[in-house]
Amino acid sequence: MENFVFYAPTLFAFGKDTENDTGKYVKQFAGSKVLIHYGSGSVVRSGLLDRVKASLDNEGISYVELGGAMPNPRSGLVYEGIELCRKEKVDFVLAVGGGSTIDSAKAIAAGAVYDGDFWDFYEGKCVEKALPIGTVLTIAAAGSEGSPDSVITKEDGMFKRGASGPAFRPRFSILNPALTQTLPEYQTACGITDIMAHLYERYLTNTQEVETTDRMIEALLLAMIHEGPRVIENPDNYEARANIMWAGMQAHNNSCGVGRSQDWTSHDLEHELSALYDCAHGAGLAVVMPAVFTYNLKHDVNRFAKIAHRVWGCQMDFECPERTAIEGIERLQDFLISIGMPYDFESLGAKKEDIDTLAQQACYGNGRTGTIGGFVSLNKEDVVNIYKLML
Amino acid sequence: MENFVFYAPTLFAFGKDTENDTGKYVKQFAGSKVLIHYGSGSVVRSGLLDRVKASLDNEGISYVELGGAMPNPRSGLVYEGIELCRKEKVDFVLAVGGGSTIDSAKAIAAGAVYDGDFWDFYEGKCVEKALPIGTVLTIAAAGSEGSPDSVITKEDGMFKRGASGPAFRPRFSILNPALTQTLPEYQTACGITDIMAHLYERYLTNTQEVETTDRMIEALLLAMIHEGPRVIENPDNYEARANIMWAGMQAHNNSCGVGRSQDWTSHDLEHELSALYDCAHGAGLAVVMPAVFTYNLKHDVNRFAKIAHRVWGCQMDFECPERTAIEGIERLQDFLISIGMPYDFESLGAKKEDIDTLAQQACYGNGRTGTIGGFVSLNKEDVVNIYKLML
Repeated sequence: MENFVFYAPTLFAFGKDTENDTGKYVKQFAGSKVLIHYGSGSVVRSGLLDRVKASLDNEGISYVELGGAMPNPRSGLVYEGIELCRKEKVDFVLAVGGGSTIDSAKAIAAGAVYDGDFWDFYEGKCVEKALPIGTVLTIAAAGSEGSPDSVITKEDGMFKRGASGPAFRPRFSILNPALTQTLPEYQTACGITDIMAHLYERYLTNTQEVETTDRMIEALLLAMIHEGPRVIENPDNYEARANIMWAGMQAHNNSCGVGRSQDWTSHDLEHELSALYDCAHGAGLAVVMPAVFTYNLKHDVNRFAKIAHRVWGCQMDFECPERTAIEGIERLQDFLISIGMPYDFESLGAKKEDIDTLAQQACYGNGRTGTIGGFVSLNKEDVVNIYKLML
Repeated sequence: MENFVFYAPTLFAFGKDTENDTGKYVKQFAGSKVLIHYGSGSVVRSGLLDRVKASLDNEGISYVELGGAMPNPRSGLVYEGIELCRKEKVDFVLAVGGGSTIDSAKAIAAGAVYDGDFWDFYEGKCVEKALPIGTVLTIAAAGSEGSPDSVITKEDGMFKRGASGPAFRPRFSILNPALTQTLPEYQTACGITDIMAHLYERYLTNTQEVETTDRMIEALLLAMIHEGPRVIENPDNYEARANIMWAGMQAHNNSCGVGRSQDWTSHDLEHELSALYDCAHGAGLAVVMPAVFTYNLKHDVNRFAKIAHRVWGCQMDFECPERTAIEGIERLQDFLISIGMPYDFESLGAKKEDIDTLAQQACYGNGRTGTIGGFVSLNKEDVVNIYKLML
């Protein structure tokens, strides 16, 4: 195991009606003038925004609002939010929504206290300072409610890039599983896929002897496999929603990814797809993951056989572990299809003739120097071949 | 799943040589005058204390020292530490040692800023305020490095009781697995047993539909079963030590125990044994656990069968799940014996004729009103019967 520092000081208030405590937690973390950032109209229509505002009112906390955060959140709204924070002397940023809204709020919180262009953070500068952030989560997916990460799409060129740093860990996150019960089935399935991708990308490591974190990742995947179909079958299943929501946070707060190399190839390849075609991130991952894993299989057959056996219950083929490994990838893809996810390029709206552009951008875009991948180092030719597997 | 709040804002610096960063972290958390609290001479003899002091010196942080913390730490030393903190205007308490030293340091940290008797906290008062605490851990066992808990033995009557509260979460904990390589085999095995007990006590729940935390508990137990024998066979196995150390923290920081009822019967019954006979806590748990589980088996046969199947690899007997459940308890006991733990009253130095006293104290001691147990409610007669199973 490699040396590491793990510091995840986010308070999680979990369960029914917890959004009514938002004001209490903003106060606990010394917020007095809040920017409430949210997405489309659903948090308005559902009455959630009103409940959050009422709880701020109860604590005598003033606020301004900025709606309009979109899936694959854009830089334009971030600039708008930064300006609003400065003008209104905001001292706390509260995201009410899913991962996209939270990521947008994080970018605003960093930009508001930074002299330069906030995009610097998305080109690799560590986020050491930001306004304090709180979240009221409405979908189990991105894990941004407990992570130090944010992903934004730059509209000038449609680049999608991530930023990271300790100041991006929310002070508090409110996780009420009931709020996710009204999600469309497709979005729920996209969230499940994203959570599973966060686990797979940590599982694919070159670090030896990491049994504790291996087992934790397997545990969270097993929980997703148990709960995913239940919530697709019955969207009102609060208990299944609750298990998914707690798993989703832990899949990405890095408690199960510490001290080991990780692989973010699937995310990197997906980000090019959702940046260009504006497809849902989870749907993109469902198409990308089996292709990446199939391409990388021979790098460490036993690792793929291990996850196939332990997580997917495949019988270990001791004479040909590769068979087990391949079966595990097939089982993953079958599972994702069973919850309604796509499995090929076409269903994402992606085009064969863009593959060269996608691969070029993945390997050379935004300061990259030709290779990606923490598990297997992949060059542009590799990436082209992986995209072709998705056709 | 029940509603819960989870807030575990401890920074973990994990890996080789991390004790040399102690001063840096004390400074990060605003300590300027430190009480270094430690146990017996081993941290002195090994040179660890000198390395910690050198790192404080490097940051210009002054300190006073208090050694002498013992296994089953005593109230007498706590009073001494409190007085020292007040006299020397200490603003940070640093524990260098195992769970006993850390628990003692926590009691000192709470008492130093409290007007009344620190024992009030061990009679149920929540610890809301304490001097900030840091730890340099030397044994993977109690999980106190990441927990809000502390257990102290009151010398006046030899009561062993726990206290809890947010202020007991350390600001930082330094986890260098190499520091545990010099532990005697027996102590290492006691630590493994304690970690497994923290997992079992959370697993035994009456809350339905907690698959995510069930799976996490199982994962950490599986990791212990994998790594425990390796470290007993080769005490210098750094990687096995590292996996155990990270599992040990997570077994007790409650990330896998949230939103579910828990059972602390085994700990309660063990505390009476170690209070009276001063046996090692882990050794006591090894004797207590199989007895408690056997006695409680019929309360929820399927839960015991589930852990037997998933953790111990027992074949599920679908015609008689009780057989599987019993086999799981036997497998646990066999495992504990295999790493050198005792299995009966006598080997703890415990006496049959004390059973009535032990049961009386467990059920009525220190403010209790006749029953204990979060899984099965047990009265004195039950507890007598359980102790008898250990003969």
